[in-house]
Amino acid sequence: MLITFIGSGNVATHMAAALKNAGHRIVQVYSPDFQHASMLAYHVGAQATNELHAIIPDTDLFIVSVKDDAIIELVKALAKHQKLIVHTSGSTDLNSLLAFTDKAGVLYPLQTFSKSREVDFAAVPLCIEGANDDIKNQLEQLAYTISKNVYSINSADRKILHLAAVFACNFPNYLYTVAQQLLAEHQMKFDMLKPLILETAQKVQEQPPAAVQTGPAVRNDRVTMDTHLQMLGHQPYLQEIYSLLSQGIIKNNNVGHEDE
Amino acid sequence: MLITFIGSGNVATHMAAALKNAGHRIVQVYSPDFQHASMLAYHVGAQATNELHAIIPDTDLFIVSVKDDAIIELVKALAKHQKLIVHTSGSTDLNSLLAFTDKAGVLYPLQTFSKSREVDFAAVPLCIEGANDDIKNQLEQLAYTISKNVYSINSADRKILHLAAVFACNFPNYLYTVAQQLLAEHQMKFDMLKPLILETAQKVQEQPPAAVQTGPAVRNDRVTMDTHLQMLGHQPYLQEIYSLLSQGIIKNNNVGHEDE
Repeated sequence: MLITFIGSGNVATHMAAALKNAGHRIVQVYSPDFQHASMLAYHVGAQATNELHAIIPDTDLFIVSVKDDAIIELVKALAKHQKLIVHTSGSTDLNSLLAFTDKAGVLYPLQTFSKSREVDFAAVPLCIEGANDDIKNQLEQLAYTISKNVYSINSADRKILHLAAVFACNFPNYLYTVAQQLLAEHQMKFDMLKPLILETAQKVQEQPPAAVQTGPAVRNDRVTMDTHLQMLGHQPYLQEIYSLLSQGIIKNNNVGHEDE
Repeated sequence: MLITFIGSGNVATHMAAALKNAGHRIVQVYSPDFQHASMLAYHVGAQATNELHAIIPDTDLFIVSVKDDAIIELVKALAKHQKLIVHTSGSTDLNSLLAFTDKAGVLYPLQTFSKSREVDFAAVPLCIEGANDDIKNQLEQLAYTISKNVYSINSADRKILHLAAVFACNFPNYLYTVAQQLLAEHQMKFDMLKPLILETAQKVQEQPPAAVQTGPAVRNDRVTMDTHLQMLGHQPYLQEIYSLLSQGIIKNNNVGHEDE
């Protein structure tokens, strides 16, 4: 397939590489920042541009991978080329594209990407949606060339998925940062926590998270929780997080748990 | 070494197995619940008891691995045997043992354990502390027989570590539970999130968490955050968590971040 990337951020970077490796041809990369566009274009053997009027119409698919609030304007500008246009956003409804083109779809990768880190794209869940069955089939075929995990998900469910992903990825990563900062204040290294972080994520690959919850809250160990809250006395903001999440664990704990 | 376990929970179960595999002899397992004691004792070829007066004094080390608020009473009862006594708790001060015995120490494994899941004990960070240098050296030697990651950590720092571990492990696991529940409400499977959860934990093995933070908050994507808060309208408790953690990410974000 001939594919054009609109956007050159983390998602575009990893998806373009995966598609190129799967034998597709990346025609062009557009970004308002020419240097960004060039960097990705260079890696996938494409042309770079930062001008919308310079976009080559001779392509099979535009993949719009930009910030959510920039998607609509770009789709508006691309619609005249009469080619299939998909976005890669968790939270943007397919309907919002259909106002401008009926050749629209979604290719949402449920993964966290950083440019500096390689990802095994074959394991990335790809959520597809199409304006009609033809488009859906086409996207499904395309998706299977780069991933083993392809899901057909409508816009409403995709929004839920995206929200769940914030809880499962973005928030835990923030809590890792808090942990790292707590250790740094006492000249201890984040390295010490790495095996724990990895094991916590590995556990839930095999068992439901509620069944492997550990720590003072699930044991309802008030003494330790009070001590922890006191230790956070100089950071009321972290106290608040500690209380709120501990309460959540205690509430959930009516269902059944492990004790250490 | 001849070792006696006081307690038969998750930590005791995994540590006893690791010590036995390293060639030590587990003499006896005590638990107020005889069935619990028997189960662990059976696995490590030890004797089981649920009576304190039946504890065999002929041992080199008592490892007290019980709930924090039960430690002191047990140490009090064991002190008369004049043998080395350690606890495995993150939050209990070594000093609280020294009121009863001067042969005291700590062997704190910085890991989350569930009985149903095997752990590579060699990778578990073991934090040791001793009432004197002799005890510390003895515990260090013992610790290195079961783990490659041995740290000498005093009681004050160990408390910080334990607090950081709650943020790095217990709270993320709770957030996995929330994500799973959000999906379940819409008949979607937690399986879809597993690659994301694993990648999030793997990323921070190599890069500082603040440097690989992704999601709407770090992009300050107000539209998506507002949508998410609306979607959580029926669960004000989760709204509160969402707001609080997003604010934390936005605050941290003054330092520098990735944009997708």
